[in-house]
Amino acid sequence: MTMPDNVAAAKAALAHLDIEQNENAIKSKSRDFFWYSPVLKARMDHLVADFVVSPRNEAEVIEVLRICYAHDVPVTTRGAGTGNYGQAMPMRGGCVMHLRHMTGVKEIAPGRVICEPGILLKDLDAACKADSGQEIRMFSSTWATATIGGFIAGGSGGVGSCTWGSLRDLGNIIRLRVVTMEEEPRVLEFRGEELARVSHAYGTNGIITEIEMPLAPAYDWVEMFVACEDFMDAARFAEELANEDGILIKLASVYEAPAPFDYFQRLKGHVTDKDTVIGLMVAPHSMDGFETFLGRRPQARVIYRSDDNDWARGPGPVFEYGWNHTTLRALKVDPSITYLQVRYGFPEHLNLVEKMRDEFSPEVLQHLEVLRENGKVMFAGLSLVKFTTEARLDEIVRIHEEAGAMIFNPHRYTLEEGGRQTVDDRQLAFKREADPKGLLNPGKMIAWDDPDFDFSEMYAYPKMTAAE
Amino acid sequence: MTMPDNVAAAKAALAHLDIEQNENAIKSKSRDFFWYSPVLKARMDHLVADFVVSPRNEAEVIEVLRICYAHDVPVTTRGAGTGNYGQAMPMRGGCVMHLRHMTGVKEIAPGRVICEPGILLKDLDAACKADSGQEIRMFSSTWATATIGGFIAGGSGGVGSCTWGSLRDLGNIIRLRVVTMEEEPRVLEFRGEELARVSHAYGTNGIITEIEMPLAPAYDWVEMFVACEDFMDAARFAEELANEDGILIKLASVYEAPAPFDYFQRLKGHVTDKDTVIGLMVAPHSMDGFETFLGRRPQARVIYRSDDNDWARGPGPVFEYGWNHTTLRALKVDPSITYLQVRYGFPEHLNLVEKMRDEFSPEVLQHLEVLRENGKVMFAGLSLVKFTTEARLDEIVRIHEEAGAMIFNPHRYTLEEGGRQTVDDRQLAFKREADPKGLLNPGKMIAWDDPDFDFSEMYAYPKMTAAE
Repeated sequence: MTMPDNVAAAKAALAHLDIEQNENAIKSKSRDFFWYSPVLKARMDHLVADFVVSPRNEAEVIEVLRICYAHDVPVTTRGAGTGNYGQAMPMRGGCVMHLRHMTGVKEIAPGRVICEPGILLKDLDAACKADSGQEIRMFSSTWATATIGGFIAGGSGGVGSCTWGSLRDLGNIIRLRVVTMEEEPRVLEFRGEELARVSHAYGTNGIITEIEMPLAPAYDWVEMFVACEDFMDAARFAEELANEDGILIKLASVYEAPAPFDYFQRLKGHVTDKDTVIGLMVAPHSMDGFETFLGRRPQARVIYRSDDNDWARGPGPVFEYGWNHTTLRALKVDPSITYLQVRYGFPEHLNLVEKMRDEFSPEVLQHLEVLRENGKVMFAGLSLVKFTTEARLDEIVRIHEEAGAMIFNPHRYTLEEGGRQTVDDRQLAFKREADPKGLLNPGKMIAWDDPDFDFSEMYAYPKMTAAE
Repeated sequence: MTMPDNVAAAKAALAHLDIEQNENAIKSKSRDFFWYSPVLKARMDHLVADFVVSPRNEAEVIEVLRICYAHDVPVTTRGAGTGNYGQAMPMRGGCVMHLRHMTGVKEIAPGRVICEPGILLKDLDAACKADSGQEIRMFSSTWATATIGGFIAGGSGGVGSCTWGSLRDLGNIIRLRVVTMEEEPRVLEFRGEELARVSHAYGTNGIITEIEMPLAPAYDWVEMFVACEDFMDAARFAEELANEDGILIKLASVYEAPAPFDYFQRLKGHVTDKDTVIGLMVAPHSMDGFETFLGRRPQARVIYRSDDNDWARGPGPVFEYGWNHTTLRALKVDPSITYLQVRYGFPEHLNLVEKMRDEFSPEVLQHLEVLRENGKVMFAGLSLVKFTTEARLDEIVRIHEEAGAMIFNPHRYTLEEGGRQTVDDRQLAFKREADPKGLLNPGKMIAWDDPDFDFSEMYAYPKMTAAE
């Protein structure tokens, strides 16, 4: 692989920073979890950065951005690379900026924490819990390996969203400090309406160097699996539990049979192929309320609870069966499985779920996550899809959309296609200001590259590095 | 006042306990806040206990109940007597048992507290906050003067119910320890489904001697008043704020104009008679989100915030303007004011409010409290009613009910009439078991006294002590 002169010059100018020298490490640090999607895998598998730099602090981030700007080198920023929409993939090579050294926790107060973007969600929670019995309101199922910065730049919600809603909801991010990519990078502080400029923008218009997040109390959540033989009983169970205002929960997932039997190895012997399973995290002081709720539903049986079980080998954290870990577990058993990200909005959520299941099961198995949106309990679907062809996948997407189930397509690498298929004017306007040369994570914002794109087919970034 | 022989005998047998000797104190300890209702005032003003005893612990509670059982003496149990449905009024005289000595906090753990019933809500919160930065999920606006036992035995919800729902919701009471009134009183522990037997039962079927409640984090809530010139704008503001999943609130009250101008003395100079006012408690780490929310609503203006104001004289706690403190403030200015307790259920809540306002304003001024019920934001109405006659009050109640706005009639002293006008079979069944002689707070449970009552008119307890 030959490096263009401008890239080599930028790399040389940054030689005093932590630059990865190992070829294999460069390759692995150029990749995220895009390969959950066969569509993205077919298109992005060859992508690799020219160099990977890991700044130690904001001053070094500024230096990377200034030097790369001067040499016209694209910069794709990443945390742990656990995202699934290809958001950390360097479409034109160049520089991958890895924030793994920026792990500082600067302040913890009642209800809030200030930290750097590269800290793992797990480590951030550990710090908050040790300091004052607190934890972040929500996290991705990749809690053990993902960073808070990556979660904000690429995530939408997760474990905790059944109570607190999504990251984009007012109050779920307090403040972001952002560096621009200009001749002389600026450092900006965003709150309130300004947060939408850079949150969930894949680092296309600024680099987050400091984060202030709200906290919730950290409880010793009781993690459970509950089994139902009827899928809709299970979906209603999860919804009704989330609607119990006095029972505090952090997770309510539903996995349609036979997914738990087929894909959850450690549940073998505890479930049959008829069992739809509900994954739960319930506050310990809500367990009395939960047991009362459960007692009213003889169709549901608890098969595991973390605080009281006789399993020879525990299943590990229950949230590592939910959100996109469900897909990961299925993929490991059956590599032909991929997924969709669906919004089943209130008040039609249960009807839509039933309709899509009637239409597609077992080609598409329902995996639901309880979510709050505008104060109402509804479902995010991370449906398990038995992949055959791209055409069939597109057809499945279309049928969902026609039924009124919005799709956030995880088989696309642009912000627009993975979102609501509309241009986010705030993100675009801020990119014009903060990234005038269009060097930040290129190819991920259609509005920047091709304002007239009509979304009639998958966007293909023309400047993407070609496979060899 | 002559004391019947059996009562005198019971009093004598309890002479070693703390028995009130002062006549005026006996009178004041025989009264609660029933006089918010002109209907109850006309019927209950003369009621007085024969004696008042204040047990120091559960053993003394048992002794009181055993002795009074033996002598056929009615026992009406009370905390601070801040309730409004006459629930602590001794209908047949006899013994009033005052729990003011039973103020122990036995255990505080993450998410839960165990305490005795006579502790003031304020003191319970102070203990939980000092121990571990926690507080109870919800409390009545009489927080400073009311007891936790009275709240559970007579309350339904309050400040905090916008987030946590009502006391009757699963998980909002963990455990109650209850003493029966039998020849040999028994001590029972209730959890789960059993809680409904004695919570909100006015002490008619058992005496609560220990309470386990869930806790939430105690934040330095930012208390605010927000003014809107349009009433429905204000109602929507409160509802929409409560639907913001990422903004943590503890109170959202709406007071229709001109109530704030007319009745809230300390708001003079800050509001006009056109201003409908919203009372709020917002978590400090949600203030950024709140200000963003506010910025989108130019029709609303913040007139007071507890953490930043230049008021010469502060208004005191904002929650002391909400729930039934609104009525109290109005009553102090205009003694002809009374109130109704209304349920404006989801999803018709806003329409119902508007309809009732169109029908009755200004004879009835809307006072709304945001409440969660089955996971949905809706309103409790504690409407301010300009009282004229009982017939007109009954008509106002009827028109609400016909429109679909359920009334919990605070002008009635029985559990059924102040509730859903249906017999609670669980409470009745437990009374049969726990109070076979029917001595506990007599006259408050119609199902016990008159199973065939048809609710066509106000219930009148035939054995009620007659006015002299």
